[in-house]
Amino acid sequence: MNAALIIIGNELLSGFTLDSNSTWMGRKLLNIGIKTMIKLTVGDSENAILDSLRSVDEKYDIVILSGGLGPTHDDVTKKAYCEFIGAELVFDESYFLKLSESFKRRGIDIPESNRDQAYIPTKGEIIPNSRGSALGLKFVKDKTRFYVVPGVPSEMMTMMDEYILPELSEIAPHDLIITTIRTTGLMESALFDTLKDIVKSTKVDVSFLPGFMGVDIRLSSRNKKAVMELSSNIYDLIGKFIYSEDWETLEEAVGRLLREQGLTIAVAESCTGGLLSDRITNIPGSSDYFLGGMVTYDNQAKQDLLGVQTYTLEEFGAVSEQTAKEMAQGVRRVFQGNIGVSITGIAGPGGGTDEKPVGLVFIGLDFEGDTEVRSFTFTKERRFNKELSAQAALNMLRLSIGG
Amino acid sequence: MNAALIIIGNELLSGFTLDSNSTWMGRKLLNIGIKTMIKLTVGDSENAILDSLRSVDEKYDIVILSGGLGPTHDDVTKKAYCEFIGAELVFDESYFLKLSESFKRRGIDIPESNRDQAYIPTKGEIIPNSRGSALGLKFVKDKTRFYVVPGVPSEMMTMMDEYILPELSEIAPHDLIITTIRTTGLMESALFDTLKDIVKSTKVDVSFLPGFMGVDIRLSSRNKKAVMELSSNIYDLIGKFIYSEDWETLEEAVGRLLREQGLTIAVAESCTGGLLSDRITNIPGSSDYFLGGMVTYDNQAKQDLLGVQTYTLEEFGAVSEQTAKEMAQGVRRVFQGNIGVSITGIAGPGGGTDEKPVGLVFIGLDFEGDTEVRSFTFTKERRFNKELSAQAALNMLRLSIGG
Repeated sequence: MNAALIIIGNELLSGFTLDSNSTWMGRKLLNIGIKTMIKLTVGDSENAILDSLRSVDEKYDIVILSGGLGPTHDDVTKKAYCEFIGAELVFDESYFLKLSESFKRRGIDIPESNRDQAYIPTKGEIIPNSRGSALGLKFVKDKTRFYVVPGVPSEMMTMMDEYILPELSEIAPHDLIITTIRTTGLMESALFDTLKDIVKSTKVDVSFLPGFMGVDIRLSSRNKKAVMELSSNIYDLIGKFIYSEDWETLEEAVGRLLREQGLTIAVAESCTGGLLSDRITNIPGSSDYFLGGMVTYDNQAKQDLLGVQTYTLEEFGAVSEQTAKEMAQGVRRVFQGNIGVSITGIAGPGGGTDEKPVGLVFIGLDFEGDTEVRSFTFTKERRFNKELSAQAALNMLRLSIGG
Repeated sequence: MNAALIIIGNELLSGFTLDSNSTWMGRKLLNIGIKTMIKLTVGDSENAILDSLRSVDEKYDIVILSGGLGPTHDDVTKKAYCEFIGAELVFDESYFLKLSESFKRRGIDIPESNRDQAYIPTKGEIIPNSRGSALGLKFVKDKTRFYVVPGVPSEMMTMMDEYILPELSEIAPHDLIITTIRTTGLMESALFDTLKDIVKSTKVDVSFLPGFMGVDIRLSSRNKKAVMELSSNIYDLIGKFIYSEDWETLEEAVGRLLREQGLTIAVAESCTGGLLSDRITNIPGSSDYFLGGMVTYDNQAKQDLLGVQTYTLEEFGAVSEQTAKEMAQGVRRVFQGNIGVSITGIAGPGGGTDEKPVGLVFIGLDFEGDTEVRSFTFTKERRFNKELSAQAALNMLRLSIGG
């Protein structure tokens, strides 16, 4: 089974908003064996939406439209959808009353503009919205199922999780075996060269999915044994670059290992400015192993809070192996954990020298008194350097605890 | 002038990778007056790419393809492009030598799979890549300019900035006035209701662009005076919700205000786990006003590092107005700054009670001894709660320093 996604919103075309909705949808659909073949992103224009509906008509099993259901004058998805399926919009008094009630409970009179949300099509079905005021829509046209969901992430996700995905998983094929092997620390071309012989000689469908911080290798086939054999061969060749399988993120893998081993960590960040802590704490329950962090952006804080020596800063500088080492040791001591991780580097765009260019980063790890420091040279871009540094730190952490 | 973007990669359809490339492109194009009308995201399939090229042919002034130029067997963009423009691929010995040299300089023998990248089309132009090995491509077909750029963000951005955008800005119309007024803290429907009368009576083109953390209002017109008048009316009606104009982010606006006033800040985070520090330090030069942060995830750290009293934690709990107040005061004292900001809350999904549900967050702000605390109730989703909390904290900070 395959799907097309139509994502609606001027803000997505003009670069105001990152489209994380369709990423989430693609992953959730693949989870139940449905492959997304195309995504169309169009503006808040009735004609553009209608054109996109026509362009996918009769080509896919499932079409999901997201966005343009809000109360403002831009939101024209419902009109285009009705024209496409040949329905009218009628005012639903009972839904309007329900909507008014829910505004009243929050102590607000219902804004006039929300009135439009009580108009519903004369054909197809309504999908309830337990998180907001815009209703979802569903219509089956020939062999294609059309769904319309809001663009607000929490509303879209809840509607997908509670209604659409359960319904689709009933009809989706279940015999496709999909395994994703997630790697970090090895370039795509090197990975490909290492694996190309076994990839050529297998009948399993293999895709290399390079992301910014690693490459995922997806294996899919109806032959479970072939997938398992290939997977095992891949582990033999590049095992230490593999951090998890399927949907587990690096921070989840690290969290799982820390919890299994009853270990606690604390982190000291300079150039990443809190990003490493942020990623670690994205995992529910991370308070079981994450004690806390320090963002010691200036040298005084490195000395006062982490006990980095004045001599070290003067002799080697804040971005040095020695400082990284003392930061890792210091933060472990302050938080009294098993492991201390530190990051110090030059994020850029300013602050680089010939000797210490932008992108130079030292990552320290103190595991119960055993300290190692690795140095990296990343990019010229500030945000990339922050992200690559946090990723490398998580990966060092993973390797140090046997991941 | 208008544009279509064709974004290529299985990883974008399967939900492995967030497509931030096209967001960036849309913004950059709009900056020079070019409106993106549609984005098509397709997989690494020659047919799918060819279909998408045909579907946009003769409809747009500019078509940009991104992705699928890498060395692995998935990367078929060049083949589809050549078929579309009617060109052959020929091996370019001199580019291959150059490529081999650049690998050699990094101490690596050129991987066999990179050899494909030295095949170039017999028609059109080559766009140099100063950041990587995949060449960009350009072809003018009737009135449409086709560009092909890599999917690796740094390579794509550099190629756009150094070559494509300068070329397009020569031919793009310059008389369109575009102003974006950025707001946070007011719902889209309330914003729309407040502004609908002046929006109806203007000839300026107005779009509401709701994002997860605020609503942007974009005004565009050829009539500069009308844009300025409307903008001034909008400021009169909703001034305190406006944090900046055009591309300035909330953290940039806050950074600008802190720098102008010579103020320094430090932050203490619990439920946001470092995200507030991360956002503040995304701004180059933030070390001028950001002293540092503490992620005090457990109670012991709140007491030891920030001086929150045992009595406060026992009597009111870690998620309380009193704790937020003492955290803000404590972090300001530790870092000796002008302002201390604190966030404590229940990110979820666990840890909520009837009295203190998931999503309850207290944000404290101590400005030279003057402390205020505000409470918020956000969502049930952990990541959303982190993001909304960091956004609200930045906004409180902005308002406290006269933004």
